[in-house]
Amino acid sequence: MASNSCKSKILSNVLSCLNYKTGKFIIAESKRVGTLYRVIQLSIIGYLVGYVFLSKKSYQAKEESIQSAVITKLKGVAVTNTAESGRMVWEPVDYVIPPQGDAVFFIVTNFIETPNQKLGNCAESPDVPDGHCKGDKDCAKGESVKTGHGFRTGRCLRDNGKSSGTCEIYSWLCHDMTKSNENVLEAENFTIFIKNFIRFPKFSFSKANVQDTADKYHLKKCHYDELLEPYCPIFRLGDIVYRTGHSFQDMVLRGGSIGILIKWKCDLDRDHSECKPRYNFTRIDINASRESTGFNFRHARYYKNESGEVYRTQFKVYGIRINIMVHGKAGKFCIIPTVINIGSGLACIGGGTWLCDWILLYLMKKREFYKDWKFENVKKYEDTKQIPEEQQLTDQSPEV
Amino acid sequence: MASNSCKSKILSNVLSCLNYKTGKFIIAESKRVGTLYRVIQLSIIGYLVGYVFLSKKSYQAKEESIQSAVITKLKGVAVTNTAESGRMVWEPVDYVIPPQGDAVFFIVTNFIETPNQKLGNCAESPDVPDGHCKGDKDCAKGESVKTGHGFRTGRCLRDNGKSSGTCEIYSWLCHDMTKSNENVLEAENFTIFIKNFIRFPKFSFSKANVQDTADKYHLKKCHYDELLEPYCPIFRLGDIVYRTGHSFQDMVLRGGSIGILIKWKCDLDRDHSECKPRYNFTRIDINASRESTGFNFRHARYYKNESGEVYRTQFKVYGIRINIMVHGKAGKFCIIPTVINIGSGLACIGGGTWLCDWILLYLMKKREFYKDWKFENVKKYEDTKQIPEEQQLTDQSPEV
Amino acid sequence: MASNSCKSKILSNVLSCLNYKTGKFIIAESKRVGTLYRVIQLSIIGYLVGYVFLSKKSYQAKEESIQSAVITKLKGVAVTNTAESGRMVWEPVDYVIPPQGDAVFFIVTNFIETPNQKLGNCAESPDVPDGHCKGDKDCAKGESVKTGHGFRTGRCLRDNGKSSGTCEIYSWLCHDMTKSNENVLEAENFTIFIKNFIRFPKFSFSKANVQDTADKYHLKKCHYDELLEPYCPIFRLGDIVYRTGHSFQDMVLRGGSIGILIKWKCDLDRDHSECKPRYNFTRIDINASRESTGFNFRHARYYKNESGEVYRTQFKVYGIRINIMVHGKAGKFCIIPTVINIGSGLACIGGGTWLCDWILLYLMKKREFYKDWKFENVKKYEDTKQIPEEQQLTDQSPEV
Repeated sequence: MASNSCKSKILSNVLSCLNYKTGKFIIAESKRVGTLYRVIQLSIIGYLVGYVFLSKKSYQAKEESIQSAVITKLKGVAVTNTAESGRMVWEPVDYVIPPQGDAVFFIVTNFIETPNQKLGNCAESPDVPDGHCKGDKDCAKGESVKTGHGFRTGRCLRDNGKSSGTCEIYSWLCHDMTKSNENVLEAENFTIFIKNFIRFPKFSFSKANVQDTADKYHLKKCHYDELLEPYCPIFRLGDIVYRTGHSFQDMVLRGGSIGILIKWKCDLDRDHSECKPRYNFTRIDINASRESTGFNFRHARYYKNESGEVYRTQFKVYGIRINIMVHGKAGKFCIIPTVINIGSGLACIGGGTWLCDWILLYLMKKREFYKDWKFENVKKYEDTKQIPEEQQLTDQSPEV
Repeated sequence: MASNSCKSKILSNVLSCLNYKTGKFIIAESKRVGTLYRVIQLSIIGYLVGYVFLSKKSYQAKEESIQSAVITKLKGVAVTNTAESGRMVWEPVDYVIPPQGDAVFFIVTNFIETPNQKLGNCAESPDVPDGHCKGDKDCAKGESVKTGHGFRTGRCLRDNGKSSGTCEIYSWLCHDMTKSNENVLEAENFTIFIKNFIRFPKFSFSKANVQDTADKYHLKKCHYDELLEPYCPIFRLGDIVYRTGHSFQDMVLRGGSIGILIKWKCDLDRDHSECKPRYNFTRIDINASRESTGFNFRHARYYKNESGEVYRTQFKVYGIRINIMVHGKAGKFCIIPTVINIGSGLACIGGGTWLCDWILLYLMKKREFYKDWKFENVKKYEDTKQIPEEQQLTDQSPEV
Repeated sequence: MASNSCKSKILSNVLSCLNYKTGKFIIAESKRVGTLYRVIQLSIIGYLVGYVFLSKKSYQAKEESIQSAVITKLKGVAVTNTAESGRMVWEPVDYVIPPQGDAVFFIVTNFIETPNQKLGNCAESPDVPDGHCKGDKDCAKGESVKTGHGFRTGRCLRDNGKSSGTCEIYSWLCHDMTKSNENVLEAENFTIFIKNFIRFPKFSFSKANVQDTADKYHLKKCHYDELLEPYCPIFRLGDIVYRTGHSFQDMVLRGGSIGILIKWKCDLDRDHSECKPRYNFTRIDINASRESTGFNFRHARYYKNESGEVYRTQFKVYGIRINIMVHGKAGKFCIIPTVINIGSGLACIGGGTWLCDWILLYLMKKREFYKDWKFENVKKYEDTKQIPEEQQLTDQSPEV
């Protein structure tokens, strides 16, 4: 008997758990507050659907850390006629540094050759402040000249009569002070073939900027053009510089650094063939004041003469440093961000009710009246407890 | 007296502020709606706990922009026997380009040597379309041959009788057209030692793929093996190519580009020793149609003879270009994403009640009846205002 | 007439849609639960405002995938006096590898020169395990010595009497076993000029670490100092090593790898001039046990003698490998994360009411009593249906 009552109690519990409990509402026929509430509601829903989902695609999981590999290959030849080594033909193997086709490389467009350098003694160049001297005591033997070219021998070289001069140094540069004229390569028509392989690890999706092999022959001939050939990965050096908005001649002479930005913006919910690269060209050695500093460096070739003595030919090369930067962004539908956006949107609507309640209960003329209806004071019914009593049989589970 | 009443008013305000106000509910004993609501509730909670937190670990702040430094060192020797320079021993210093141990490097596996190149005149190779000519007028002096090897001298070279030929050019390539046979290195046993240092800036956590020094001697001997030695950072070149699923012989001959992906997936809530790299090997110079294009480039060594004349030995090297790409993802508990996920989850449950209300009030048979109970119309009690009157003394703060 | 009633019905629908419906609440004068609820409310609001928005700036959209280009330029000279090639002056062109100013480069600080190497036969060095032999049969002709220096000629070289020796090999290293002493460069005062251009693609914001050209002359003279010159991009090699907390002498001798981390932490809601880089120096070739392994590699210069025979000078260079890693993080106000955080915060407050309800209805002494007031059982009014009847004329839209 007791067990029965117990069973029935459990049963009723379970059943009551399946009762649907929903909040009781009062209808405040205040059109102003009501309208306000609807406006809030609609604007949030509009924001969710229109901005968050349609425009920003926030229903997608995003991937921005891209894996990328770049291979480059240059073509084109130039000829120079230098006082030092006569007529010279420049092939990629000569003017691309390093030659192995990296993502960051340098194209020689102008150089100063100083052949057959040997170590010896000579005057430090006057441009180096630390090289100046008034007497031998300023040229302590063996000390290096700060940001200079060699080591002091202990002597101060002064043109007769002059009160100051420059220290004598032991240096490589001693046999070339005279002959150093520039030699410009005609680099405008060099072509750069860029091969870019990317991978989005999160979605394990990978692609290359060189489409399919069908148009292999086309690839040999085409040149990149923003409008006509946006996917041809072969670039004329002249075009690249032109697109950065700088003067080719200026860059060729003083050198410069150009960034080629490859952008992959892929919506992986769409067809993968729509995931295509965009190329962008900007000069990256420009200060705020847009004053360029150019780009150059020195490299040398070493030789030995019959007597085994080392000598070298040093090249001060000005040129264009290409820096290929790849940036990718992929999105694919994912439940989590979707729920997060919907959920927080709904919550904000809930916040809207708070605002409206507050207006209703604090700003409206009939606020006291509304309060009385919205809030039911339990306490003062304490004495009249017998009324609810009988309900206690049907014990209700709470709103969890 | 007035101040007293004022004080008491403030006090009652403060107290009433601590009253707990909770929504009044009606129990609609509709098992169907109730069940639906429970289902929604449980499914969302299940999604939160099971998918979001346990499976996706969305309680963690994620870091995907990794700082990485890679150092590589190759070992192994090969011997070749070329017509040009006889027996040659190839050490890393000879076959690794560049030699300084970068993350992107090239291993010579096959080369064509063209020694003692000097500048001179010869016929452009017939492969170059722009080099063809019918007469000298097609070979304007000084013009470069597009994607060719040199500069036109002004003469069109035709085998007697032939109507067309190729322009004569001034070029490096003039002394080697004949002898150019390939020489393959036995590169299968070369080993690559990869040292990878990573850092997650957000968590300022850093680690290296070379574990501790305890097994230093072991490090000298071990070879990477997916199953047996997954953490040994020494790789046989043969194994690497094998894992990409391509033929080693083919790659050795025509060259190719391989990406070694190092994946760091670290749960920083766990013990840091569990944060270990995974290695992955893929060939990255393959088009959609899986047709390889190979990889090669030219580099040269420059010499001078007694008379100071420059000549060079050019190597056209085929080989394997290794591109080590590091990708890392770390997660660590963070309160913000946790709150966001829980909050939006709860909000969605709230959305569930809306759905159920809507069903209850619009689709159920007894909808009108439920409506009457859910909604209490304030207006029609307006005349009977004296009832609430007395309540106004206990002024209630709103539900904020 | 019917149409009229229809019209009026529609109208009343529309109007009722603008009625403001707000939940009916009961006031449970339980100060404990009320207080608890207020605490939850305030703590969540505090967390939102204080932690999420003020401290973590979660109202911003974050960008962590940065595009970066680095150019480096070294200055300084050193002199060495080697037995092999006498007094030598080292300029950047000699000691920086590669010379073209990349983000990853190597500075020679110590080297072993082995000049005039020719191919020939000699004994494998005893350090190579695979080179040991007891008899000629252990030295199969033509086989390479694993991790060795050359190819077995077939002979086992043993000092007379000894039972074991090392195989004879055909190798480059045969003319230099003797003379190989180290030569240290005084590299402490070398300066590294680092030029870093960055770009945040999401906000298309770009900047360089070299401020404006106003202080161009200053740039020539300044040296980076954490406190005095935090934005001067010129670094003394000695300072860099010092900041890593390692001994310069040790690094100079055995070599090592240093990471220069450039951190861009930009709040793009602020003035852009406040987006400045921070420099950080850490040694990255250290194992957990902080035991260094040093860093060195070999490179060679190739020469030809009159008879056209190739020989080379090999340098085993120890030195400091600098790896410049750029990490950027930019934030800018965005509505979506703001809404998400606020929304989920509100939702959590809602969760708080659940908790309090649960306490109120299950733990409090007067729980049954509260239940009766919170929940209104519809069923038992089913018979008394005539009361609501008349309301059905004013048909209420649900709370959507």
